[in-house]
Amino acid sequence: MESFTLHLLTKIIFGRGAEERVGEEVKKYSEKVLLHYGGGSIKKSGLYDRVVKSLREAGVEFVELGGVVPNPRLGLVRKGIDICRKGGIDFILAVGGGSVIDSAKAIASGVMYDGDVWDFFEKRGTVNVEKALPIGTILTISAAGSEMSPNMVITNEENGRKLSAGKHDSTRPVFSMLNPELTMTLPKFQIACGAVDMFAHIVERYFTNTENVSVTDEMCEGIFRAIIKNAIKAVTDPKDYEAMADLMWAGTIAHNGILGTGREEDWSSHYIEHELSAIYDIAHGAGLAAIVPAWMKYVYKQDVKRFAQYARNVFHIIEQDVEKAANRGIEETEKFFKSLGLETTLEGLKIGDEDFKKMSQLAVKSNTIGNFVKLKSEDIEKIYRLALK
Amino acid sequence: MESFTLHLLTKIIFGRGAEERVGEEVKKYSEKVLLHYGGGSIKKSGLYDRVVKSLREAGVEFVELGGVVPNPRLGLVRKGIDICRKGGIDFILAVGGGSVIDSAKAIASGVMYDGDVWDFFEKRGTVNVEKALPIGTILTISAAGSEMSPNMVITNEENGRKLSAGKHDSTRPVFSMLNPELTMTLPKFQIACGAVDMFAHIVERYFTNTENVSVTDEMCEGIFRAIIKNAIKAVTDPKDYEAMADLMWAGTIAHNGILGTGREEDWSSHYIEHELSAIYDIAHGAGLAAIVPAWMKYVYKQDVKRFAQYARNVFHIIEQDVEKAANRGIEETEKFFKSLGLETTLEGLKIGDEDFKKMSQLAVKSNTIGNFVKLKSEDIEKIYRLALK
Repeated sequence: MESFTLHLLTKIIFGRGAEERVGEEVKKYSEKVLLHYGGGSIKKSGLYDRVVKSLREAGVEFVELGGVVPNPRLGLVRKGIDICRKGGIDFILAVGGGSVIDSAKAIASGVMYDGDVWDFFEKRGTVNVEKALPIGTILTISAAGSEMSPNMVITNEENGRKLSAGKHDSTRPVFSMLNPELTMTLPKFQIACGAVDMFAHIVERYFTNTENVSVTDEMCEGIFRAIIKNAIKAVTDPKDYEAMADLMWAGTIAHNGILGTGREEDWSSHYIEHELSAIYDIAHGAGLAAIVPAWMKYVYKQDVKRFAQYARNVFHIIEQDVEKAANRGIEETEKFFKSLGLETTLEGLKIGDEDFKKMSQLAVKSNTIGNFVKLKSEDIEKIYRLALK
Repeated sequence: MESFTLHLLTKIIFGRGAEERVGEEVKKYSEKVLLHYGGGSIKKSGLYDRVVKSLREAGVEFVELGGVVPNPRLGLVRKGIDICRKGGIDFILAVGGGSVIDSAKAIASGVMYDGDVWDFFEKRGTVNVEKALPIGTILTISAAGSEMSPNMVITNEENGRKLSAGKHDSTRPVFSMLNPELTMTLPKFQIACGAVDMFAHIVERYFTNTENVSVTDEMCEGIFRAIIKNAIKAVTDPKDYEAMADLMWAGTIAHNGILGTGREEDWSSHYIEHELSAIYDIAHGAGLAAIVPAWMKYVYKQDVKRFAQYARNVFHIIEQDVEKAANRGIEETEKFFKSLGLETTLEGLKIGDEDFKKMSQLAVKSNTIGNFVKLKSEDIEKIYRLALK
């Protein structure tokens, strides 16, 4: 096991009606907040009204900034920073899914930084987040895990780049309210994409060269199994509160960092997918459903035994031959994604090979990506090609 | 799944040399601390010198209070409260195992309370901890999980009562430093007792009547397996850093609350054991090794299927008949404790039946204990009797 530091500072309030305590929780930090959200769905569902009521009852003033879109845009982040600075706002309340929360994190850290917020993304490693306004969230989609993680992904609409940033604990939300009922009106496609995203967050941590990590191996495999079981129930019947609740909690645990403690993590599939959704504006989870199996096929020879362990412990594959077992595990991964109604090829997503070279070069950034296997741009191009059909 | 609130606010610093950062971490909270520890072992090992050096380099003043014993005493807690009040101390640094950390929590909360600190224990439910001085820990024994939990157990030497308190997040340490190397010089008996204690912390959460808890079931079963695997390695060779590291991290996760999220917890075995170690001053883990199997035998009929699931998923028992499977799981639990070199009967611990009635009455406190099965004093007496030989 490797050394690590873990600070899971986010207070989780989980269950029916959790969001009704939002005013009381916000009040502990601020009396003037930015209320950040996406489109009209929180207004249609009545969630917006409940949040506003709770804030008003607690005597918390707020300024609104809606309009966050999937693959959230830098332009709106800059606008949010400007509103906070001019309005003396010192808390960001994000009501939505991963995109809204990521946008809130970028605003919260951007407000505290003298330069342009895009520096955190473009000059990552050189310019890093060191402080941020406190953030609270009311989660409406189980997927990104952003509600308890410090990470954020923003798309720069000026140059089409979709980049990630944030390893600093100041961008972990100070509280997150998780009411599974809020996810019960989501379209099945979004539930499926969310399940693949959380599954992929564990893939990025599970496939490691670090040895002697049985505590986290056991937890990763357990959460993999719980996601499979509950995602299938959830897309079958989104009104199944218990399945939606288990899925919601699994999504948070998958990405809050506990499953990666003491292990070198990978993150190639995410980088490779980000280039896809930057150009084609597809859902992140939909892209991952094609990329993750292709990445697995390309890298499994690095540690066939680990892939055989994955097949055995996650998909209950009984197969003596490790090579065969490893391949069965990859097949089962693809089958699971398909069983949720998702495409697992780029062709299925109506994406051709015309941008493969460009995306492969953009994905590597400086040198290589990934740790399980370090990938160069030519490797990435092969992975896109493996994902094609 | 039930609704829950979880605030894992403790920053974990894990790995070789972790304790060398103690001055720097303490300095964020305080410039004058109580350095709280047990006997001479931290002086013999050189840990005391390293801690003192780090505090001095950071310019942190400290007052010392050593002498914490296993089953930590109320008298020393009261003395610590007095020292803090008179000395203007506003931070408690605990260097040791669960006893030292629990003693530190009692001091930290007692300082902030107008009445007598024993109220938190004797009048639990009526008088509750609401605030506490911040606590930091350097852990030297993997066992109690007190390094990330709010709970504490104190023994009142005036009346022989051993009681628990603390459900408030203010008694969760603000940081805990976990260096597995510090545990590599422990006697095998202590390592074994620690492993049983952490195993029992999961038993208390795993056996529940709450349904649809697959995420936490999976995590509980995974950490059970990881404890079994690594505890056996650890008692075989305490110099096995990797086993000691996995065991240390498992012990923290077992009791920080994440494994109990959304589930009703039980805690009977702990209450029943506390009466034993209050009278006989045995190690808590040694008592649990006899009590947990006896408790299981007494209650398993409440949910034979859950016990069969436990047997299958924790001990890999393949057995169609659920009754037989459940019993095999209990047998395997006992075998595991024995394989660590521990006694699993009270007779083996040289404890007879003379105090059973008294302990049974004291254990129930007001009415009943436990949630999986609510136990009255007559039930508890039967459990002591089942544990006898």
